[in-house]
Amino acid sequence: MTPVAALERTLHDEIPISQAIGVRVAEYDGISLRLTAPLAPNTNHKCTAFGGSLYSLAVLCGWGLLHLKLAEARLHKHIVIQAADIRYLLPVAQDMNAECRMDEARFRNLLRTLEKRGRARMSLDVAVKHGDQVAVEFSGRYVVHS
Amino acid sequence: MTPVAALERTLHDEIPISQAIGVRVAEYDGISLRLTAPLAPNTNHKCTAFGGSLYSLAVLCGWGLLHLKLAEARLHKHIVIQAADIRYLLPVAQDMNAECRMDEARFRNLLRTLEKRGRARMSLDVAVKHGDQVAVEFSGRYVVHS
Repeated sequence: MTPVAALERTLHDEIPISQAIGVRVAEYDGISLRLTAPLAPNTNHKCTAFGGSLYSLAVLCGWGLLHLKLAEARLHKHIVIQAADIRYLLPVAQDMNAECRMDEARFRNLLRTLEKRGRARMSLDVAVKHGDQVAVEFSGRYVVHS
Repeated sequence: MTPVAALERTLHDEIPISQAIGVRVAEYDGISLRLTAPLAPNTNHKCTAFGGSLYSLAVLCGWGLLHLKLAEARLHKHIVIQAADIRYLLPVAQDMNAECRMDEARFRNLLRTLEKRGRARMSLDVAVKHGDQVAVEFSGRYVVHS
């Protein structure tokens, strides 16, 4: 199974509401992860994407990227979201598309802290785009521990 | 139909993912609104409530309270979430319970601004409790407009 397929199965199995949202793992190149979800099950009263679904896709995108990078480092740790903030800049009137990029230097720092202390934190930014424009800015603080 | 039943129908009809989450309108006394959702469809990999579901319940609690208060004032406006931050203090290992309370003086201010400008903003805090303890602190900035 490819890392992309394995991550999608993990999300659907372990976080069942991700199936109702329709979360798909679209792309992973070792640095960036892109998740998608269809608009239809996630509409709000204005027929654009519900803020809670946009948040869920974003928080899973950061979680998924950390999960993949830790798996590549042969580390099987718990990853939990500790705090987040989100800004809705534009309504999203199409299928949702969330992207998160890993900073390699910061990830090496995380691995060093994990080795030393068994626990580390990392903030990750996720963007949801509408066409070429950033529609949603998300920043999440994740904790990784044994 | 009671305001509580009407709000629950509005949420389920207009934001269909709220049905998958299992959002129920539990209590409204004219000042405070309480929403609930069962743990089962909202679990994560640690068998506690998924952060995205907790966020969704919280954002709907603030939205629902504003919706009820505006309906009482015979105003039918659009309410959209503009930005939010959330802190996860404790894992929630039971059915979810979100509460939001309206400050009457701030609501009167909102009505005045709406009348003058046709548009107003309000921040609302929502707490998700685990037993007696606050497990999740949410603060959302909502925009009300015609």
